[in-house]
This record gives sequence, structure tokens and C-alpha cells, in this order.
Amino acid sequence: GAGREGFFLRSADGDFQLKLRGYFQVDSRWFFGDRNQTLADTFIIRRARPIIEGTVYKYFDFRIMPDFGGGQTTLQDLHLDARFWPQARFRFGKAKAPFGLERLQSATDTTFIERALPTALVPNRDLGLQIFGDVGDGAISYAAGIFNGSVDGGSNDSDTGDGKDLIARLFAHPFKRSRERTLQGLGLGLAGSAGNERGNAASPNLPSYRTTGQQLFFRYRSDGTAQGTTIADGRRYRLSPQAYYYAGPVGVLAEYVWTSQRVRRGAAVGQIQNDAWQVTVSYVLTGERASYRGVSPRREFDPKNKTFGAFEIAGRYHQLKIDGDAFPIFANPQDSSRKAEAWALGLNWYFNRNVKFALNYERTDFTGGAARGDRPAEKAVLSRFQIAF
Amino acid sequence: GAGREGFFLRSADGDFQLKLRGYFQVDSRWFFGDRNQTLADTFIIRRARPIIEGTVYKYFDFRIMPDFGGGQTTLQDLHLDARFWPQARFRFGKAKAPFGLERLQSATDTTFIERALPTALVPNRDLGLQIFGDVGDGAISYAAGIFNGSVDGGSNDSDTGDGKDLIARLFAHPFKRSRERTLQGLGLGLAGSAGNERGNAASPNLPSYRTTGQQLFFRYRSDGTAQGTTIADGRRYRLSPQAYYYAGPVGVLAEYVWTSQRVRRGAAVGQIQNDAWQVTVSYVLTGERASYRGVSPRREFDPKNKTFGAFEIAGRYHQLKIDGDAFPIFANPQDSSRKAEAWALGLNWYFNRNVKFALNYERTDFTGGAARGDRPAEKAVLSRFQIAF
Amino acid sequence: GAGREGFFLRSADGDFQLKLRGYFQVDSRWFFGDRNQTLADTFIIRRARPIIEGTVYKYFDFRIMPDFGGGQTTLQDLHLDARFWPQARFRFGKAKAPFGLERLQSATDTTFIERALPTALVPNRDLGLQIFGDVGDGAISYAAGIFNGSVDGGSNDSDTGDGKDLIARLFAHPFKRSRERTLQGLGLGLAGSAGNERGNAASPNLPSYRTTGQQLFFRYRSDGTAQGTTIADGRRYRLSPQAYYYAGPVGVLAEYVWTSQRVRRGAAVGQIQNDAWQVTVSYVLTGERASYRGVSPRREFDPKNKTFGAFEIAGRYHQLKIDGDAFPIFANPQDSSRKAEAWALGLNWYFNRNVKFALNYERTDFTGGAARGDRPAEKAVLSRFQIAF
Repeated sequence: GAGREGFFLRSADGDFQLKLRGYFQVDSRWFFGDRNQTLADTFIIRRARPIIEGTVYKYFDFRIMPDFGGGQTTLQDLHLDARFWPQARFRFGKAKAPFGLERLQSATDTTFIERALPTALVPNRDLGLQIFGDVGDGAISYAAGIFNGSVDGGSNDSDTGDGKDLIARLFAHPFKRSRERTLQGLGLGLAGSAGNERGNAASPNLPSYRTTGQQLFFRYRSDGTAQGTTIADGRRYRLSPQAYYYAGPVGVLAEYVWTSQRVRRGAAVGQIQNDAWQVTVSYVLTGERASYRGVSPRREFDPKNKTFGAFEIAGRYHQLKIDGDAFPIFANPQDSSRKAEAWALGLNWYFNRNVKFALNYERTDFTGGAARGDRPAEKAVLSRFQIAF
Repeated sequence: GAGREGFFLRSADGDFQLKLRGYFQVDSRWFFGDRNQTLADTFIIRRARPIIEGTVYKYFDFRIMPDFGGGQTTLQDLHLDARFWPQARFRFGKAKAPFGLERLQSATDTTFIERALPTALVPNRDLGLQIFGDVGDGAISYAAGIFNGSVDGGSNDSDTGDGKDLIARLFAHPFKRSRERTLQGLGLGLAGSAGNERGNAASPNLPSYRTTGQQLFFRYRSDGTAQGTTIADGRRYRLSPQAYYYAGPVGVLAEYVWTSQRVRRGAAVGQIQNDAWQVTVSYVLTGERASYRGVSPRREFDPKNKTFGAFEIAGRYHQLKIDGDAFPIFANPQDSSRKAEAWALGLNWYFNRNVKFALNYERTDFTGGAARGDRPAEKAVLSRFQIAF
Repeated sequence: GAGREGFFLRSADGDFQLKLRGYFQVDSRWFFGDRNQTLADTFIIRRARPIIEGTVYKYFDFRIMPDFGGGQTTLQDLHLDARFWPQARFRFGKAKAPFGLERLQSATDTTFIERALPTALVPNRDLGLQIFGDVGDGAISYAAGIFNGSVDGGSNDSDTGDGKDLIARLFAHPFKRSRERTLQGLGLGLAGSAGNERGNAASPNLPSYRTTGQQLFFRYRSDGTAQGTTIADGRRYRLSPQAYYYAGPVGVLAEYVWTSQRVRRGAAVGQIQNDAWQVTVSYVLTGERASYRGVSPRREFDPKNKTFGAFEIAGRYHQLKIDGDAFPIFANPQDSSRKAEAWALGLNWYFNRNVKFALNYERTDFTGGAARGDRPAEKAVLSRFQIAF
């Protein structure tokens, strides 16, 4: 079959199905005010992800999604699901960890081209076993699992130590069945994780953080020696309250993330706690409904019919704060910032359900992170042309 | 088309066909008794292999199978076949070398999660040209070819020297047409290879061997210098008698592999001969027929019908012995064992033809391989959830 | 759908379509007269490229083509096209730069197994935005765009500096509508590029050149230090007049390429100008029409019908000349040749539209490039078995 609903092969009874999907993002990044071209203006394939999803014998699903973007090949998703009841499904394999609100939004549906700073503290893909489901007619969704454990913002393909991460997330639409229509689109959630992470000088198992423009602005000390390298040294916790609200053409998404990781450098030990938050607001100019799953234009782009799709504008503020205890022992203040704050304006043009063009302006200001005083602000214009099917 | 027989596009006359296949294995490995967590407990994507197979103009087949498992991307199979007669087919490209019995069994159908130690001595994928076919109504299968030549247990994507490997294998079902039904499932084979392999300090072209738990237990000396590195230096031979026997729910698989490789370190030269053997026995509790190609459950798993698929139990013993001449000049006895012996117990749960869960316990004992005396035994519990279509 | 026209899923109105395509090349390379096996005889997967092409909502096309050949995984093509008018189409993403005549010919259709030396001076894939189209009923094709900029013969996945390349190409079939049938198959073109490329000691951003046998015969000095490494240091220009002519079974393809790149080593600066040209002549023995898009056999190979497909013979001469100013400051004459000249003979056997076998003999002579005098000639026999669909 082929059409608006995608491309697929399906048995008559629907027990066997193969869906051929994918999403492809061609971006450009232009930086202003960067002396000496420290940030290279570039075209880039941000994501090139063919997807094969399928069902065999009615109860068993699979999904594989490699990514060929950015000059590298990685396996983003490979999971096998057993789906006997909607209330409790089992997932084995590599998938997004059930934690961050914007991280769990599909990369095709985020309001801005790059996710906001809280996502830098959130595990990306993780490998393990989870149980998840919906209860109360979809009013409450939950997920909980045991995973290898990824560093903040990272993914993994195997573990280097015996410690595992427990991750759980609860998300509710408390007014989903309410008569008050303006409240139906409210979603509230809470996610938490607890685990154990250890590293060594060769593989410190600690995160670094990047801006929207993919500029590194925080990293732990690491010179390859045991004395000069900060390593993960035990307990890691994360917590994230999160919410969104969609009413007609208006959308609001907010999340806060707190992470805590025990680190060591030589004899010095610390429990470093970083946090970040964001608020994103969007408005669909052409009147379609805003949603966590993107905008579906009422009239598809067709120059012959003089229809042009849907347009959306958006703004956001976000920031990430490093624990003061990280400096100067664990991170070098001369090349690691203590804080990044950013705001952005964005325009999204939805040609149809499959094709989207986005244009963002984003400014990020830093506290510290330079040999003297503050690192200069990053001013970036990002564009994206995307086909997803 | 979509269904029990898979997913495919086919022309009306069948001369053109494209099959979309794949197999995906999500494993976990848990080690016991390893002080200092020398062996990391981990979840891992063992294999993530989408497959495209096809036929064009009736006589020409192709197969491409990349693997995205284990955090790496490799091309496992890419071969083009010309199929004019069943007795003689030509294969160009990268495919399994026609040598080891368990290696030639599909990774989806092996009785245990990891193949036994003889496979560590067997070439995995090789690149070249082979002729293969069946004669006598399938009673005898043969394959012979010329290949770049892979090290024991390894694969290659190109050759680094002019020497090529000749590999041949004969496998017979002598009683296939016999009236004695208990003998029909007997298969006997012999494989051999002869080639020439040379290496240098940067690329020694010699194998190392791993256990079921993927622990390295033997490697040649290699410190990057010409004096401290053992390199391949000429003739390589391999020989493997092999057999299986399937009768009703009972299966037995046995193979022996002997390899011989000329090596050099500085002025010292030797012809190192290693060998390994295994016996695997399995029994299908639910009564289905055992076979080299796995078990097809009589009743598929369906909680609504209270049917649960098929269950199989299995046991095996296997060992690998290093040539005494390898020590101490070519391999360092302090980190390379002289012998590994292992036994395992396994349970396979076949939900249906596509979905399988496996649980194994395996213990491997070593002779030598530690600074003093024997390396501690490896005790591993492995699990696998697999979808193959 | 499946058949001669390929494998695809298509909606009834044709507005949505997914094509599953691919091409796979299994090569062998045999070198003669190379003392000490400096050039390894080898089987190799030259290209293993599955392709997904599609159309959504009638106006938007996409194409993704990874390559798993040669032991590496790369993304060759990922582009999104907006196609509102045939005269002007927009392409975003990674695709062949609109420059070289033989480079723009599909790898499945080149007359010889490896492209001739001018292609070593031509950008391969580039990432950016282009507009292209046909005017005058296909008599004139044009393409122009802005790209990250690739080194000679190279591709890129992102840019390391702000400078971009402008590339444009015009190609005409001046007699396409002429009554003079012998002139209809004449095509004439001109391509040019202008850009800016800078490098540093770690990443010099300069090309190296290889022969048909993939032997490196020219590279700039590079020892990792600023003093010992030649780097790109500014303006880069390229120009290429190009032509082909097809009349019945005869084909002729000719191109000339000139490149100019500003380079620096320490305090020394130069503008290095290299050039190359080729002439390829082919003749289809079985009488089918020669074309830029390969040969379609009148009778497909089928041993039962005693039909054998089409056969083509071909010859070519090509050469590449390095600027004398490159030596000895920027390139080391002891391992870089000043000139490579080659001629080749080839045979192509087209079994059908999808399957091709090719056999080439090629001899390349060098001027300089050895510690004393000329590097020895490369004498190579190449073969290829190819399936493309």
C-alpha cells in the first residue's frame, strides 16, 4: 500500500505487517559575530533515518532505525515489543529512554530545529528492558525499565560496568475526558532515574554539553592521565517535572531537569548537580490545531490550487546551570561555562503532512567559559528542510 | 505480499522478486564470580540485520545484509548469484565461507546463543568466487571457491597480499532416500582450506580467540614492534570433519576443526596447529521435529487460545586447544590460555516461526592464561530475544 | 509492483510512490609486474548501495543511498527535491556536484570499471542547495548551486570553514530536434566552480590522486607539523569543457578538467594548477544503441533460448598533469608523480538490463614519483560483476 498513511505491506488479516518509513533532514547553520570563524557555517545532513517497522503473528512488533546523518552511521533504534495488552507492553532493545519530554517528542515534530538545553541533561537512547502502557483510556501513560545507563544527552550500545540504571516516567492528561475543552490538552508528567556509573581515565563516562549550534560549552577535565581526568565514580540521579498544554492553535511546552553525578579526580570527590529548564510557546497562524505530534495542514501546498500549507511561529527561553562545585577541580573554568542561557524565535512552514521547512534564530549567552570572563554569545540562524513519511 | 512466508514484491511470472527480510537479536549477558567486574554485565544488540534479497530476469539473485549490531556497522553479506542449473550455481561476493558446520547454520537457528569454540577456528565471511550445488536429489551438497582468505573466526573486505585461499566443503545425507526413517536425518561432511597469509607488525594477520561471553582468552604477542609482534608468515591449512543427526525431537551436532598457520616473530618461525571440537545435543519438549534450521512450533503462542509455542532444552560440551609451540615465543602465557573447555545448558522458547527467546548458562574453564596458574572460570548467563522474518 | 521497471509501492493517483532500488558491484583487481606485491591482488565489494527513492504529495521527492562497499559505510546521496516545474527544480542535500561528465554518469553505466583520471580533479558528492532543470524540450540542461565545497575527487558531510563553493554546469544537445539523425546524439557542456578552501596541519583540506587500480600517485606533503604540511589557503577554481557523441552502436566521451587551488606551506604560497583529459570510444558488437545511460540488450541472456545479451568493446586514453610549481616545496617528488598517463581496453557483457559483467585491462605510466626516476607502470586487470535494479 502507498498513500497519505505511508508505505507498507500487510497481510489480509493484519497480523503481519511491514512499514517502510523514514525521515530526512537537510539543515544549514549560519553563525554571526564569530571572529576567526570559530563556528563554521555549513550545510549538513542532520538526520538520514530510514525505518523498518513491522508486526509478526499479531503480538510482536519490531523497529529498526539506523541514522546515516552527520557523516556517521549509528543504530538509533532497534527494539522488539511484545504487545499482549495495551496496559502493559514489553520492549527489549535500544530505544529512547522514558525520561525527557522534548527528547521523547519525535525529531520530526519538535517546535524548534534543535531541542532546548534541558535535553542535554536527559538520556537519549538506552539499551535494556522496559514495560510501558496506557491506563484509564489513555489518561495516564507510564513506562519503567532497567537499562545499561547513558550519560547526560548520550546513548550507548553496551555497558562497561555492572551498574544499571532504573528509569521511570509517568505522564497524565488529567482532563482528557473533561467537558472543559480548554483543559483537555493539558499534560503533566514526572520522570526519575537512579543508577551507578563508573569510568576511568581512558573512558571517563561523563557528559559534555552543547548549544543549539552544536558548540561545546561544558566538559570535564580530561587529559588522558588519571590525575588530570575527572571520571564518573558512583551514584547518578535525575529528576524531571514536565508539562505541555495545547488549545486550538496555541501550544506551550515546559520542562525542568535536574541531574546529580558522583565524580572523582585523583583524590578529590564530588557530587555534581546540574539543572536546566525551558519554556516553548507556539502559535499556528493558519488556525490548525497545535499538538505534541506536530501540525497537520488543513490545505496542502499546491501551487496549482493556490494553497500553501500551514504556518506556525514560536518562541522559547531555556537555560542550563552547572554546579559551582564543578569548578575549578573537575572542570576547567577557562573553557567550560558555568551557565548557558538562550532564547529563540522560529517559523515552521508545513507544506503537507510529510514536508516541513523551518527557520530559527537563536542567541545563547554564556557565563564564564573563556580565558578571561565570558565566552562570546552564539548567534545562529538555522534552517531545515525535512521529509518524513 | 505479507504473511507467514515473509514480505515481498513479486512479478506475476516470478522472474522478478524482492524480499524484505531481517533478524534482530537483543541479548543480555550476566557474569558471576568475576571479581572487580572484569566482565561487564550488559544489555547488547547482538545482531541488527535488515536483508534485501532479490531475483532479476529469473536467473540472477542478489542478497545484501548489513549489520548494525554491537555499536558498529559492517557489511555481512553482499553476493550476486547466477543460477542456471541447481547442480552448479555461481556466487560472487562476500558470504559465509563454505567451511564450518555451526558457522554455516543461520545465526537465527543455532541451538545456543553463541556458537561453540570450533567456530573460533573457522573463517566467517570471505570475499571471492564460489561454485556450489546439490547433486543426487539433494543427497550431496558441495561448494568450492577461491577467496581473499580470512583469519580464524574473522571476515575480510579486501586482501592485503596476493595469496588467496582455496576452500571446499562436501556434505552428504547418505540415507536421505533410505526407508530407514531413523537414519534419514543423518548428515556427514568434510571441509578443507589451503592458503597463504602474510602479515607485518602493523597488521599481523593472525587471529585471537574469544569465549561465549566474548572474553578474549588467546592472542599472539603484539606490541607494535617487529621484534615483539608475531605475524602470519605463509601457509595456512584447515580441516574439519562434521556431522549432525536429527530424529524426531532429538538433535545432535558435532564438529572438529584443525587449523595450521605458519607464524614468525623476529627470527623465530613456527607452524602453529590449534584444534577444537564440540558436541551439542537438543530435545524439543513439545514434540516438534528438531532440525538444522530450527524448530517450527505446532501451535503458535497466543494467550487468547492458551497456546504457548514450542520449548527445547539442550546441552553441549566444547573445547579449544592451542599448540604448545605457541608458548612462550609467539604468545604470552601470562595472558593467553593453552586451553579452554566449556559446557552449557540451554532453553529455547519458540513463540512462533519468527519469534524466539533463549536462556543459556555456560561455564568455561581455562588452562593457563593468568600471571600465575589458570585464569578464573567464566560463568555466564546469557539471554536473547529474537525476531527473524 | 515488481518487474522490468523495478520494485515499488505506488498510490493509485501516483502522487505517493516508494521505489526500492540498488546496485551492487563485486570486483577483482589483479596487478602484474609489481615486485614485492606492492599492489595487492584482491576481490572487493566496490559498491553496495541500496537506494530508497520516493515521492510524497506529488511535488516532493527524496532519495537516500548509503554505501556499504569497500569495508566502510558512507552516505552517498541524501537529497530532498521540490519539483513544481520541469524547468526549475530545487534540490537540498547531499548529491553529486553538477560538474564532471563521467562523474555524473551513473556508476552502473560507465564504459570502464573505474572512471578516468579527469574525475580525480572533479568534486564527487557535495552538500548544499541547487536549482536545476531542462529547457527547450530537453535540448539544454542546467544546474547551479551553492555547496560546502569538496576537494578534488572528494565528498563532504559538513564544512570546516565559512567559505562556500559556487558550482554551475550547462549541457546542450544542439541537434536533438535536428533531422540529421547522425547529429542528434551529440552533447556539449561546460562546467565551472569557484570557492574558498582553508585547511590546517591536522586537516589540510587538499586532495590526493589515485589511479584506476586505486594506487595513490600524488599527494601534498603532510607530516602533521605546520612547517611540514601543505594546506589549502584560499581560492579554488575549476573548469571543464565536456562532450559526448552517440550514434547507433558507437559512443565517444571526452572531457577536460582544469583545477586551481591556492596552497601554503609555512611561509611559501602557491597557486597550483592541475589538469587532466580523457577520450573514451566504445562500440556495441551486437548492434544495440550506445548511450550515456548504458546499453539495453535486445535479447536478454537465457541459455534455454540460446540468447546471450549484448557485448560491447571499448578503449580509452587519459592523463593527469600536476603543476610543476607543486614540486619540491608542496609535494615530495620522491613519492608523488608529476604526470600519469593511461590507456585501457575493455569488454562489457550486458546479460540484461540489470546484470553486467565487465573486464578491463589498463596500463598507467608515471613521470617521477619514485626515489629515483619514474614509478613503475601499473598494469591491472579488473573485473566486475554487477546487478543494478
